Amino acid sequence: PSTLSEVSKVPGVVTGLAWTSVGGDILFIESILSKGKGTLTMTGNLGNVMKESATIALEYIKAHYEELGISAEDLENKNIHVHVPEGATPKDGPSAGIAMLTSMVSSYKNKSVKPHLAMTGEITLRGKVLPVGGIKEKLLAATRAGIKEVILCEANRKDVEEINKDYLKHLKVNYVSKMSEVVDLAIV
Amino acid sequence: PSTLSEVSKVPGVVTGLAWTSVGGDILFIESILSKGKGTLTMTGNLGNVMKESATIALEYIKAHYEELGISAEDLENKNIHVHVPEGATPKDGPSAGIAMLTSMVSSYKNKSVKPHLAMTGEITLRGKVLPVGGIKEKLLAATRAGIKEVILCEANRKDVEEINKDYLKHLKVNYVSKMSEVVDLAIV
Amino acid sequence: PSTLSEVSKVPGVVTGLAWTSVGGDILFIESILSKGKGTLTMTGNLGNVMKESATIALEYIKAHYEELGISAEDLENKNIHVHVPEGATPKDGPSAGIAMLTSMVSSYKNKSVKPHLAMTGEITLRGKVLPVGGIKEKLLAATRAGIKEVILCEANRKDVEEINKDYLKHLKVNYVSKMSEVVDLAIV
Amino acid sequence: PSTLSEVSKVPGVVTGLAWTSVGGDILFIESILSKGKGTLTMTGNLGNVMKESATIALEYIKAHYEELGISAEDLENKNIHVHVPEGATPKDGPSAGIAMLTSMVSSYKNKSVKPHLAMTGEITLRGKVLPVGGIKEKLLAATRAGIKEVILCEANRKDVEEINKDYLKHLKVNYVSKMSEVVDLAIV
Amino acid sequence: PSTLSEVSKVPGVVTGLAWTSVGGDILFIESILSKGKGTLTMTGNLGNVMKESATIALEYIKAHYEELGISAEDLENKNIHVHVPEGATPKDGPSAGIAMLTSMVSSYKNKSVKPHLAMTGEITLRGKVLPVGGIKEKLLAATRAGIKEVILCEANRKDVEEINKDYLKHLKVNYVSKMSEVVDLAIV
Amino acid sequence: PSTLSEVSKVPGVVTGLAWTSVGGDILFIESILSKGKGTLTMTGNLGNVMKESATIALEYIKAHYEELGISAEDLENKNIHVHVPEGATPKDGPSAGIAMLTSMVSSYKNKSVKPHLAMTGEITLRGKVLPVGGIKEKLLAATRAGIKEVILCEANRKDVEEINKDYLKHLKVNYVSKMSEVVDLAIV
Ligand SMILES: [Ca+2]
Ligand SMILES: [Ca+2]
Ligand SMILES: [Ca+2]
Ligand SMILES: [Ca+2]
Ligand SMILES: [Ca+2]
Ligand SMILES: [Ca+2]
Ligand SMILES: [Ca+2]
Ligand SMILES: [Ca+2]
Ligand SMILES: [Ca+2]
Ligand SMILES: [Ca+2]
Ligand SMILES: [Ca+2]
Ligand SMILES: [Ca+2]
Repeated sequence: PSTLSEVSKVPGVVTGLAWTSVGGDILFIESILSKGKGTLTMTGNLGNVMKESATIALEYIKAHYEELGISAEDLENKNIHVHVPEGATPKDGPSAGIAMLTSMVSSYKNKSVKPHLAMTGEITLRGKVLPVGGIKEKLLAATRAGIKEVILCEANRKDVEEINKDYLKHLKVNYVSKMSEVVDLAIV
Repeated sequence: PSTLSEVSKVPGVVTGLAWTSVGGDILFIESILSKGKGTLTMTGNLGNVMKESATIALEYIKAHYEELGISAEDLENKNIHVHVPEGATPKDGPSAGIAMLTSMVSSYKNKSVKPHLAMTGEITLRGKVLPVGGIKEKLLAATRAGIKEVILCEANRKDVEEINKDYLKHLKVNYVSKMSEVVDLAIV
Repeated sequence: PSTLSEVSKVPGVVTGLAWTSVGGDILFIESILSKGKGTLTMTGNLGNVMKESATIALEYIKAHYEELGISAEDLENKNIHVHVPEGATPKDGPSAGIAMLTSMVSSYKNKSVKPHLAMTGEITLRGKVLPVGGIKEKLLAATRAGIKEVILCEANRKDVEEINKDYLKHLKVNYVSKMSEVVDLAIV
Repeated sequence: PSTLSEVSKVPGVVTGLAWTSVGGDILFIESILSKGKGTLTMTGNLGNVMKESATIALEYIKAHYEELGISAEDLENKNIHVHVPEGATPKDGPSAGIAMLTSMVSSYKNKSVKPHLAMTGEITLRGKVLPVGGIKEKLLAATRAGIKEVILCEANRKDVEEINKDYLKHLKVNYVSKMSEVVDLAIV
Repeated sequence: PSTLSEVSKVPGVVTGLAWTSVGGDILFIESILSKGKGTLTMTGNLGNVMKESATIALEYIKAHYEELGISAEDLENKNIHVHVPEGATPKDGPSAGIAMLTSMVSSYKNKSVKPHLAMTGEITLRGKVLPVGGIKEKLLAATRAGIKEVILCEANRKDVEEINKDYLKHLKVNYVSKMSEVVDLAIV
Repeated sequence: PSTLSEVSKVPGVVTGLAWTSVGGDILFIESILSKGKGTLTMTGNLGNVMKESATIALEYIKAHYEELGISAEDLENKNIHVHVPEGATPKDGPSAGIAMLTSMVSSYKNKSVKPHLAMTGEITLRGKVLPVGGIKEKLLAATRAGIKEVILCEANRKDVEEINKDYLKHLKVNYVSKMSEVVDLAIV
């Protein structure tokens, strides 16, 4: 759909996958830089665990900015704001972690994310990607929304293999175990 | 009515549309600059989601001040205060987002907003306008209050089309999908 | 009574009108300056909405100090403290707004407020005065306390007209719609 | 008793009168200066209203340091800490206000307070002393503790006159209406 | 026991006496200095009243550092951290006050505390020691733990005299009324 | 298993042992440095007691950096972030203390921790290691996860001796009483 294609041109915008009480859904993670002192602001009616994901992502970036090709000066002289739209809906949990990291890297590098791509996975400080729940519901929501390709944790492969293959025939699934793989797949 | 005409001369004042338990209502968003260090203060008995809308609006402005024709110096050396009158009434939700953005741009540019205009819509960090609820109740409240023109999200068009046309015959409805369109329509 | 006459000589002291569960009452708003960096402190067991009134009043002053004849240096180099006596009684609501504004202007200008005068009304950031509730109870309390003159919002005129005229024959009622009118009437 | 005589030699120590669910009691207000930047710290398991009394007292002192004979340099370059002993007992209410003010003035002037003196009364920012409750219970507790002289608000005179004179024959009662009178009576 | 002897060599470690729902117990107060700006940090699952004791102790030290033989430079250029081990157990109340003061003085002077000594008592800002509860249970716990000597408030003497003398025959009890006596007894 | 071998190459990663309502489990403590001013950030859905463990660990390091071979400059000019993965699970208690200390030392020294090693124990500010609960459940979880060697408090030796020796035959158990022993065993 046009909504998703349009998205892909703006740096800082990443499609995540959410698992709610009424099924799977896609959500967007947006980030933006402004002149400042390196502070992080978060909005979107986020719970504490989801806010922690953004903190972890930024700390990881600060410790690995060179490999990521991010300017040390931008980290020091720009503020970063992360927002997850639809403010009326409370959001929580760690599964947006890799999408938040990707959104921030995209903003700092001023490069947009690959179109029609979505992702879900927890991040850890040492750069690992951890598995998350609700994989079946999330992938069905992704296909409904026109997503062509997803990034999941290697440890979620078993959850995908349990799903009827017909449902996923137009969806490419990438399995990763490290953050660096996520960034390589998403920002091209 | 004279109240609304008078409003239109003061920069920073924008008419929003609210949807409460007792029907639709208009509300005003006011903003004002003072000498300072770029801080944002919010008053008016606002809930957290509504405060987040003001934060998002300011971050968007800081990232796009050049296109908006706002001075970088004002962003750095002025504080901005956003108030939503009638302090006795708690207010929340994301639907005042585009009115908050418009109020702030109006204050920074020191240009008043078009008279007899009201607006409702959620804002996102990347500049999109999202649909909101209670469209029918909000538009009836707008006409009762003498509003001649409204700005809504394109995705709310279907909600307007369900309303009896007679009720809206003196109301011009503008549909937008990006913040820049809101600013272009409201500050002339 | 001597209490009220005495009050009138001290800058920063204004008589407000409150509406409580046991009827109307007068209350005092006090403010005081001290050497500092322009911070605002509030005491008197105040609820959040009443604290917001003080914040709005100070922001209005900072944006309009020239018209008000207030020194920019005092705004920057003095702290202002606002207190509402009788700390044992919790106080809230927006109706002390114009009294707070008047108290602060009186302190910054080091000019006392007109004696035997009381006021009640909500303030907005753009300088409007909004109507408040409990007008009948407040005016009866004012006359009992020896008040000779009150300031009310123009939109409260209808509430006064419903009161038996005999009760108010020794009370002059001023109706205003803008903050600047309040200041002109109160600080002479 | 020796406890009270000993107290009178240390600047910053003032005897207050409390009214609790089990009757009247005396309490001590202590304050102390240390090198710093003018900050105020409060301990003693104090409720918000009692903390506000300390804030009001310090603001009053900052605005009237010259009349009080306090050095502007000490206000800027010393921190002040106010403590009310017996940390296990929660304490609240405004009636320790004049004792807090007196304790602070005593510390800043490095002059001890008159021995065998106790006091109770609310303070306001403009220097007024307001009446408080529990006068009978407080005065009986004072005589039991060996207090010879008390300071009360003029408006509490009627409460004293209702007490059997025999109970108070060894107690001198001073009535005041302004803070400056309190300081003149207590610090000699 | 070896645990207690070992303790006595490390500056900043003091044995306190606690009174819990299951009887008396000993607890340790530890403090440590690090390069900094004079800030105080507290850990050990402490309630507000116990945290206040640490604040009072530090303020007392700042006001009396000369008599205590503590360097003004250390107070300004070192942070102090106070910890009460066994983080799983919530702790509160004022009775650790004199142990906290002694621990801090021991750290600032870099001198260890006398071995086999324990103490319990509330501190006040003017240097008084106040009595505390649970004396019998605390002293029995002290003897069980191999403590040879304790410091108590003079006003707790009556509580000791009610205890069967046989229980205390290997315990030396020191009674004090001022902080300076505590420090003189504990740091030799 | 490969997960654990892989872990051992990254400085700042330590395996801890947790005791939950559903039995024992391993958990990872991660820490990472970034350019900054010596601040400590903690994530991982941690309770207050667990956060206090990180604070104690950092204070201990700041007071003993020389013995630990850590650069004073890194302590001042680097921020440290401590994370405990699996953000969806709330975590609390003091038993991760020695793992947190080890993780931080590993990060500051940029040396990885010995592979196949896990640890559990409370830390105190003076460098002692205290015993913790759930030893049997924790050791069984460790062996299940492929751990070859653990570090426990000396005072937990009795808990190990109660476990059937067959269960532990492939597990080396080290008993310590001081933090310095933990660091010597873990970072080689
Ligand atoms: Ca949705
Ligand atoms: Ca989740
Ligand atoms: Ca309305
Ligand atoms: Ca809404
Ligand atoms: Ca009253
Ligand atoms: Ca009110
Ligand atoms: Ca008492
Ligand atoms: Ca009281
Ligand atoms: Ca114990
Ligand atoms: Ca206690
Ligand atoms: Ca696990
Ligand atoms: Ca634990």
